[in-house]
Amino acid sequence: MTIAATALPSERVLAQLGDTCSGRGLHDLAARLHDLHAWIADDLRDLEADLARLDGGASIVHRSARHLLDLGGKHLRPMCVALAAKLGGGFGDAARELAVAVELIHSATLLHDDVVDLGDTRRGAPAARTIYGNAASIFAGDWLLVQALQAVQRAGVPGMLDRTLATIDEMIRAEAVQLENRGRINGDRRDYFHVVEGKTAALFRWAMFGGGSAGGLDDRACSALERFGLHLGIAFQTVDDALDFDGDTAVTGKALFTDLREGKMTYPLIVAVAREPGLVPVLEQILAGPEGEPPPEPLRRRVVDALRSSGGLEQCRALARQHAAEAIACLSSLPAGRGRDALATVAEATVQRES
Amino acid sequence: MTIAATALPSERVLAQLGDTCSGRGLHDLAARLHDLHAWIADDLRDLEADLARLDGGASIVHRSARHLLDLGGKHLRPMCVALAAKLGGGFGDAARELAVAVELIHSATLLHDDVVDLGDTRRGAPAARTIYGNAASIFAGDWLLVQALQAVQRAGVPGMLDRTLATIDEMIRAEAVQLENRGRINGDRRDYFHVVEGKTAALFRWAMFGGGSAGGLDDRACSALERFGLHLGIAFQTVDDALDFDGDTAVTGKALFTDLREGKMTYPLIVAVAREPGLVPVLEQILAGPEGEPPPEPLRRRVVDALRSSGGLEQCRALARQHAAEAIACLSSLPAGRGRDALATVAEATVQRES
Repeated sequence: MTIAATALPSERVLAQLGDTCSGRGLHDLAARLHDLHAWIADDLRDLEADLARLDGGASIVHRSARHLLDLGGKHLRPMCVALAAKLGGGFGDAARELAVAVELIHSATLLHDDVVDLGDTRRGAPAARTIYGNAASIFAGDWLLVQALQAVQRAGVPGMLDRTLATIDEMIRAEAVQLENRGRINGDRRDYFHVVEGKTAALFRWAMFGGGSAGGLDDRACSALERFGLHLGIAFQTVDDALDFDGDTAVTGKALFTDLREGKMTYPLIVAVAREPGLVPVLEQILAGPEGEPPPEPLRRRVVDALRSSGGLEQCRALARQHAAEAIACLSSLPAGRGRDALATVAEATVQRES
Repeated sequence: MTIAATALPSERVLAQLGDTCSGRGLHDLAARLHDLHAWIADDLRDLEADLARLDGGASIVHRSARHLLDLGGKHLRPMCVALAAKLGGGFGDAARELAVAVELIHSATLLHDDVVDLGDTRRGAPAARTIYGNAASIFAGDWLLVQALQAVQRAGVPGMLDRTLATIDEMIRAEAVQLENRGRINGDRRDYFHVVEGKTAALFRWAMFGGGSAGGLDDRACSALERFGLHLGIAFQTVDDALDFDGDTAVTGKALFTDLREGKMTYPLIVAVAREPGLVPVLEQILAGPEGEPPPEPLRRRVVDALRSSGGLEQCRALARQHAAEAIACLSSLPAGRGRDALATVAEATVQRES
């Protein structure tokens, strides 16, 4: 598929994902992605116009926030809000506010994460903190969080502000667990899932519940959507985990081994160290290496070999497929139709993504 | 006055302030502080029990937040909420939630500020970031902010959540201006007041308005209280400015010249550089000095001499007195009584404080 130069970030993501699926012979999935795109193109355009309009002024704090937002991103979380809302009464004003809010909350966490992890690149470009400094990124994250909460307030969906605060609380708890474990070779799956559910899946759950709620769906439907969001979030994160080892950096915009170098245990590593304890000293050597530099080639090769021989990478992708399937199963109680099909398409396509 | 070993932070602050006033021959003010203390002692005890109860768990993120809260602080902002509420129907549950919220918002900003300013000490003790790291302090600030907003929600005072978000937005804007100007000898009074009103006075305004609102006062009374808060906040901050140069470090718990070394223009410096442009290269030398070290004695002496000869310190204290008087004038439309007297006492005592 040719991608127009004027394409919006989400249009590019959907088009690239369609190409990936076609390249893998998944022509039906590619066609369904194309349909999905046609169905929500106007909604995404509205959403991206809203995001482009957010303007705090010319200070380095507000420019830091703008810098990150202007890099685009996949906009998968707002897309979840839009699709959930369209299952009900449509992507109206309230849903649009929530779609903006979810992207701003996500962006706020990225700004703070980049300071915490000393991340230099984000979305294939210099991270805001490398241009405007750590201090500006800290306040920029605070600012985006406030803007997000104001958008939730404007949406006026009953109970949604409380749900937002509880979700952010859960995200911070997950960050706390991750921080405690940073730099430790920790094979504890409970810690791993605590972090994934809190850092990633909680916001997908919020997006699905919020979109459904703003679209006027009843509590039972919203709960089903929320469970869908949980599994979609885990599928999304486990694909990310795998891409840290076998992704194409030109496509992901992120150097390989970034998670590992930031001291984060990902699912493929958990599988690999359980099967091959000899990998532990190799990982420790990588963690002890100089910050900001890729690990030496022989160490990298040993990790990749261990991930292959232990089945760590394959099991990680199988876990992603399993959660995508569980996500789709959560949709069974919802009325059949274009909206439900679109969500199933998102779940299936998520495990195919290369970026 | 003897201070019991079991005294709460706010009890110590009020007792010390009373001693200061007595020492200066202000016996009437000291007696009024004593009365005020007796009047709100139970309320402060309740509030401090609420703050002590806040527990996020054992992670370094939550321990960072706990560390700062356990250092006490003056609790002047929650005291403002309590006094404003007592002008109306009393310090009930809603006002107590807002009193907790204002202290948590303030604490969240301190945690982020210490990371931004690389502050090593806070309240005479090691800053949380020096014990648990910058990353933990960033997330701890985020966590306290969420806890504060949840408390505001629980308070259930109509419009208060929106007002809280607008106030935090204003605080971040002031942080942004301060960050832009950091390390520059900027004599612009508009920038100075923008920062003081946003960083300090905005939260005092919020506390007074919120307390009045939770206490059931009408809009007119709440607006008067809000204006009182604005002037009290400016008086409070300008006293802080002066103490950075002439405070007793054993009492303030903060090294002298901290603001200057963090590249912040305070009011005494603005007056001094306008009168004595020869001070500018001296300040530039101090700013260019090694981080974390006090400026050499000869440079310090030149600054202190210039602050005295230019009248910078005296004008700063006069400004504080003026705003305390304006704060008291704002109370004229409120019903006379113990509540109004207590607020006037707070404003008068603020300019006497030594810590």
